Amino acid sequence: MTEQAQPAPAIQTWKLTLAYDGSEFRGWQVQPGKRTVQGELQAALGRVTGESPLPQGSGRTDAGVHALGQVASFVLAAPIPAENLQRALNRTLPPSIRILESRTAHSGFHARHSAVAKTYEYRIFRGAICPPTLARYVYACHWRMDVALLQRSAQLIEGEHDFLSFAATDPDLTTRYREPDPKCDLEMKTPPAPLTTMRTIFSSDWEERETEAGALLVYRVRGSGFLHHMVRNLVGTMLEVGRAKLRVSQIPEILAARCRDAAGPTAPARGLFLVSVDYDE
Amino acid sequence: MTEQAQPAPAIQTWKLTLAYDGSEFRGWQVQPGKRTVQGELQAALGRVTGESPLPQGSGRTDAGVHALGQVASFVLAAPIPAENLQRALNRTLPPSIRILESRTAHSGFHARHSAVAKTYEYRIFRGAICPPTLARYVYACHWRMDVALLQRSAQLIEGEHDFLSFAATDPDLTTRYREPDPKCDLEMKTPPAPLTTMRTIFSSDWEERETEAGALLVYRVRGSGFLHHMVRNLVGTMLEVGRAKLRVSQIPEILAARCRDAAGPTAPARGLFLVSVDYDE
Repeated sequence: MTEQAQPAPAIQTWKLTLAYDGSEFRGWQVQPGKRTVQGELQAALGRVTGESPLPQGSGRTDAGVHALGQVASFVLAAPIPAENLQRALNRTLPPSIRILESRTAHSGFHARHSAVAKTYEYRIFRGAICPPTLARYVYACHWRMDVALLQRSAQLIEGEHDFLSFAATDPDLTTRYREPDPKCDLEMKTPPAPLTTMRTIFSSDWEERETEAGALLVYRVRGSGFLHHMVRNLVGTMLEVGRAKLRVSQIPEILAARCRDAAGPTAPARGLFLVSVDYDE
Repeated sequence: MTEQAQPAPAIQTWKLTLAYDGSEFRGWQVQPGKRTVQGELQAALGRVTGESPLPQGSGRTDAGVHALGQVASFVLAAPIPAENLQRALNRTLPPSIRILESRTAHSGFHARHSAVAKTYEYRIFRGAICPPTLARYVYACHWRMDVALLQRSAQLIEGEHDFLSFAATDPDLTTRYREPDPKCDLEMKTPPAPLTTMRTIFSSDWEERETEAGALLVYRVRGSGFLHHMVRNLVGTMLEVGRAKLRVSQIPEILAARCRDAAGPTAPARGLFLVSVDYDE
């Protein structure tokens, strides 16, 4: 008998774009015994491909936070046409998670480490009575609000700043942004980002939006990256300015303080949407 | 000591109009140990007024069925301004139930017995991928569908017909539409309706509706009353016509059969909305 060389399995890196209703999950990250988006996606990949890579998200959304365009990466050994993977995943996933796009990526691609920008939206319902079918997807806030003050605050956030004042005071703050995930399937191709709470905000704006369900006030922010709770803390603080509990001029002071206590409260998770993640490709 | 006549408490009949997200409840009707709309409303009335009348709905929506304008009636002994009742109830109810209007009614008013017409809507999502934030509120149906056939079927439903073929085969069918509710707080001012599965449909139409979230196909029906599961069974049957599994000419045959087995399947609850209830006032 002659030995025959087996072709090495062609490990392929995948990039999925997905939407989800965060109200149905205990956040993105896998947690034992809890229903999470990452856990559901891993299980679905297992059912579809027989492999169960832990999909890496562009970031960990909290419980109640929604996604219109989260990105996840993972590797698969078995070949499968991209369209088939999308269709099969959507067939087995709950309707609260939908794969919007499925494609292969270059071997160094990693949903988190390769991301160059992210866009979030925070939606506030302004009508008198929030329709029950909208209640999971907005923060119904009835305060009188000066939108011009909100917008002036938002403009002060643009540019490169130290956002420590707007970061959750997690005990694991240092590990949260720095260390590679030990469960990560991909070998790190780039060194971990240095520990920093500096972030660059490319755009930061409030807009009033008329919808079929009523008037919304929407904050849209695009930045190089975001600290844990950063968008919700920015929104909670700007709302204090909008209702004249803080002055616009205090925004730079809060940034300079580098202390969570200097900023306003954390706005509720249900109004927050991860809109999209950008990559250099 | 002289006896003093106490003024009799002024019993007042109330009419509430409310919206709810049916996906959060096990239907309208109170059931021990289960979260229902009627149960939540009764508990909220108790917290606000100290009285706990069982609110009578215009009808019992099933688990997963939504309401844009359900009507409930009950009596209260304690006087309270209508606006205050609405505001206080909305403060204590979950966001998935909202009181849209609160007003007093004449003493004979009963949300079910006084109703003269009801309007339902059934919403079908037609896009390729149903947004997760819409999934609880539509039936995502991807079959090729001939809308002209749907509309021709819908037209055949209009007028007075025996709808037994479209009624759920409940063991309690006879009690369901006939007997007064023993828990009802109101004395019956009118005799119960005779046992019949005859109903009059005033209008019955399909329309294509463009929304921000994508294209919907919507069935809207207004009638004198509806049997249990009647709208969902009508929709399930018309969809069979729309995708050419049944012919339009079979609709009158199905009506004539007076047998549930003659009709098509029951469309999922999540697409159904009770839009409004009409009264002669």
